[in-house]
Amino acid sequence: MLVLGGSVLIVGLWDLLAWLTGDERQKFAAIAQLSSAGIIGALGGGLFFFTRGGDDYLGRREALLLVGMSWLIGAALAALPFFLWAHLDPAVDPNHPFLRFIDCYFESMSGLTTTGASVLGTTPNDIESLPPGLLLWRATTHWMGGLGIVVLFVAVLPTLGVGGKKLFNFESTGPTKSGVKPRIRETARVLWLIYLGLTAVQTIALMICGMSLFDAICHTFATLATGGFSTRNASIGDPQFGPAIYIVITVFMLFAGVNFGLYYQLFRGKTSNVFRDPELRLYLTMLAIASIILSVNLINMPIHTTGGQYIGSASVGEAIQHGTFQAVSIQTTTGFVSADFNHWPFISQATLVTIMFFGGCAGSTGGGVKVIRVLIAFKVLLSSAERVFRPNAIRPVKIGKMAVDPDVRLDTVVYVLGIIVLSFVGGVLIMMFEDGRPKGDMLTCFTASVATLNNIGPGLHLVGATENFGDFSGLSKALMSLLMALGRIEVYAIFVLFVPRFWRTE
Amino acid sequence: MLVLGGSVLIVGLWDLLAWLTGDERQKFAAIAQLSSAGIIGALGGGLFFFTRGGDDYLGRREALLLVGMSWLIGAALAALPFFLWAHLDPAVDPNHPFLRFIDCYFESMSGLTTTGASVLGTTPNDIESLPPGLLLWRATTHWMGGLGIVVLFVAVLPTLGVGGKKLFNFESTGPTKSGVKPRIRETARVLWLIYLGLTAVQTIALMICGMSLFDAICHTFATLATGGFSTRNASIGDPQFGPAIYIVITVFMLFAGVNFGLYYQLFRGKTSNVFRDPELRLYLTMLAIASIILSVNLINMPIHTTGGQYIGSASVGEAIQHGTFQAVSIQTTTGFVSADFNHWPFISQATLVTIMFFGGCAGSTGGGVKVIRVLIAFKVLLSSAERVFRPNAIRPVKIGKMAVDPDVRLDTVVYVLGIIVLSFVGGVLIMMFEDGRPKGDMLTCFTASVATLNNIGPGLHLVGATENFGDFSGLSKALMSLLMALGRIEVYAIFVLFVPRFWRTE
Repeated sequence: MLVLGGSVLIVGLWDLLAWLTGDERQKFAAIAQLSSAGIIGALGGGLFFFTRGGDDYLGRREALLLVGMSWLIGAALAALPFFLWAHLDPAVDPNHPFLRFIDCYFESMSGLTTTGASVLGTTPNDIESLPPGLLLWRATTHWMGGLGIVVLFVAVLPTLGVGGKKLFNFESTGPTKSGVKPRIRETARVLWLIYLGLTAVQTIALMICGMSLFDAICHTFATLATGGFSTRNASIGDPQFGPAIYIVITVFMLFAGVNFGLYYQLFRGKTSNVFRDPELRLYLTMLAIASIILSVNLINMPIHTTGGQYIGSASVGEAIQHGTFQAVSIQTTTGFVSADFNHWPFISQATLVTIMFFGGCAGSTGGGVKVIRVLIAFKVLLSSAERVFRPNAIRPVKIGKMAVDPDVRLDTVVYVLGIIVLSFVGGVLIMMFEDGRPKGDMLTCFTASVATLNNIGPGLHLVGATENFGDFSGLSKALMSLLMALGRIEVYAIFVLFVPRFWRTE
Repeated sequence: MLVLGGSVLIVGLWDLLAWLTGDERQKFAAIAQLSSAGIIGALGGGLFFFTRGGDDYLGRREALLLVGMSWLIGAALAALPFFLWAHLDPAVDPNHPFLRFIDCYFESMSGLTTTGASVLGTTPNDIESLPPGLLLWRATTHWMGGLGIVVLFVAVLPTLGVGGKKLFNFESTGPTKSGVKPRIRETARVLWLIYLGLTAVQTIALMICGMSLFDAICHTFATLATGGFSTRNASIGDPQFGPAIYIVITVFMLFAGVNFGLYYQLFRGKTSNVFRDPELRLYLTMLAIASIILSVNLINMPIHTTGGQYIGSASVGEAIQHGTFQAVSIQTTTGFVSADFNHWPFISQATLVTIMFFGGCAGSTGGGVKVIRVLIAFKVLLSSAERVFRPNAIRPVKIGKMAVDPDVRLDTVVYVLGIIVLSFVGGVLIMMFEDGRPKGDMLTCFTASVATLNNIGPGLHLVGATENFGDFSGLSKALMSLLMALGRIEVYAIFVLFVPRFWRTE
């Protein structure tokens, strides 16, 4: 809470400065953010004060509780600036989604989980009509969420032995004599430096390609977190953004989808491990294949930009530009859009839906089920088939040179199946909530479920590239917020909160 | 082949008798079937003659090969009567689907796998325009396929230790000193008697309810095999069929979805085991819940019969009649239809799609992933979730009083995931094959994939209750035939045929 409050404070002070130097639009954004900072800071400070000197033991169950509640409560607090601004600024449209708290919660959950689905979009309540201060805050929730998830999955959970520890190609494998805290702190410090370094490099690169400092910072925050919030209605399809910007963003999305544990190893000088990493290799291979399928499939196909222009049949260059960009954006679950893929041929759409499900690498800021799980699940499927006709041949399932532990095999397949079941149940519930409403069709509701659970952002049809989530009912928005949180922290840390046995002491 | 040839011969002789006693429609059906019987008999006899005295060793790989090839080749042979009839009878419409061999193959594969999806349906090439002899042959393929699958999964495979042996609540658990053949023969003999007994009872019951002998036999064959081919265009929704017929068919569909191993135990007098069977209990519970959901959901909803009449808002009685019938027909994967569920509300459709996936019990004639697998997968999911916050509590996954073997846990979850992946891949391929054709929409193609892979029959939209599979391209029909075979023999026995390692000797 203190970190969150501090971040709102910084953005609020920047708003204040902008207002004082003449930008009237920033006035109510500044007031909303400084008040939010006060409220969040008071809450966090109060909790800190009253729990001082308590037992600071952090076991497995406490860690899960902390993680689960962080996202659920954090999103409510991060929603305050949106909500307060909409109620303070008299110029706000009476139908503005931010006047409803559930919409603000959806937006900030989408930010913190690095999903990038937005309730904004319909004129006059479009993205570009927000004060710059709120656009920066949206991007900041991405950036913080991305950093949080990397630290959580690369530094905290493996050290505590919770969750997918064994999935990570990572040196720390459990508590040592010196205790876990120093190690977590040290790893987190390095990850933070790497994240900050990437942020600085991408911001400068985008400015060199012609973006303003403001746009460059916001898009960098959204890229490295594989979030997807843009400052423009047309996302990266904005006519001001040229091919150089596409290339920079594509490269950094690709970086963001890599296991940050590998950057940590690079930082430590262990380069050979990194390039032999089977997940990284498969990740790059998948991206290459998807980009080629899309690029080839799009040649001579009609391209509609997200700005609403029809730019005619795609030349080879345009097919590569949009095909590669969209493949990387969707597989890394960033969700930036450059062209309206609702108009694309079925093969392209099927490829996008498939890779959105695969997602980034474990330990990256990307969502989805993660490349390493896809790899393990695929190998387990093959070995199961072989066992039918050769039940006595014991052939271990290997990833790289390591045999995969039987428990991990089961957990991985269970996880993939669980995500599919959750996507289906989510889709059915959304359809029930949207019955008779404008977004009640099957393709919209089911891809909305998949796109939120896998932290991607856009889906297909009425949640496609040029659409938004504003017209869903409050119930659906609440459900999708839960799905985003579930997907982001890999289900269990939220799921167990609803399991009675979790709360029982042994 | 000899059994198949013998069956065609019997049906052909009945046709001949009908023709000689004055039914002109039967003439070419009789000729086609008697010629087919000759061809199949010659092939089977030839193989028998030339392989006489060879090694009759039947190991695991040979059994899988035999099973896989039986369905793939059997369907080609069982398609002969359709194909020959269409080419012999000069009165056949020039667009009749049976003039194309792939359509005949699809139809007979659909029969033998007890799926019930048909290429027939559009006037003048509708079901009722076929000569009775071919309608009887369609039903006979169901009946033989159903018997074959029960014998295979209850008598043959468990004794050989292939496939899902441990899934079955069944006493035989492997080869004994006396060898496997006597036991297989004995079990198969009892199963055959049970199947025959059920056939006789249902036929008589349907006749008491007013069906003709011919209709009663055909519908009994299709019911006990959970097939779904009817002799009427409107299936069970035919206006001549009253509520008593609905009740009889519902009850026998329910019987057909039960593990035939349980009937074997009843036959042996072990009644107590049967009613404690966890799969049977869950199966009945699921059917009850689905029937209640559909019945309640349908009250006051518009009901369109499959005959095309709109019979107004459903009374409570009509809602129960159609809701229960359709729930049982779809979960047992029979696929008989009484009302056009394309018009039903979303909750009913979602319920139908969910239970079509669950399917019947293992060792029944029903398809789907089987109730026992759903039960195991669900328990494994829960235990996986618990392990996250309590990694040291070793709690075995239990079904009834038996702990589930870890290998079975993994195999079950892998199977369920594999079916989902196959459904998706099937749907994508069908969409690609149907691009620009009348049945190219997503709901049609994906439910066609699910409905064939799970051996149900009807899907939704353009493969819904009143539709048929005739307008698909040849490629799609070939793929769906493969999906039916894969689903029917639980994937592996076909899948392994495509695995190079299967063919290699150790």
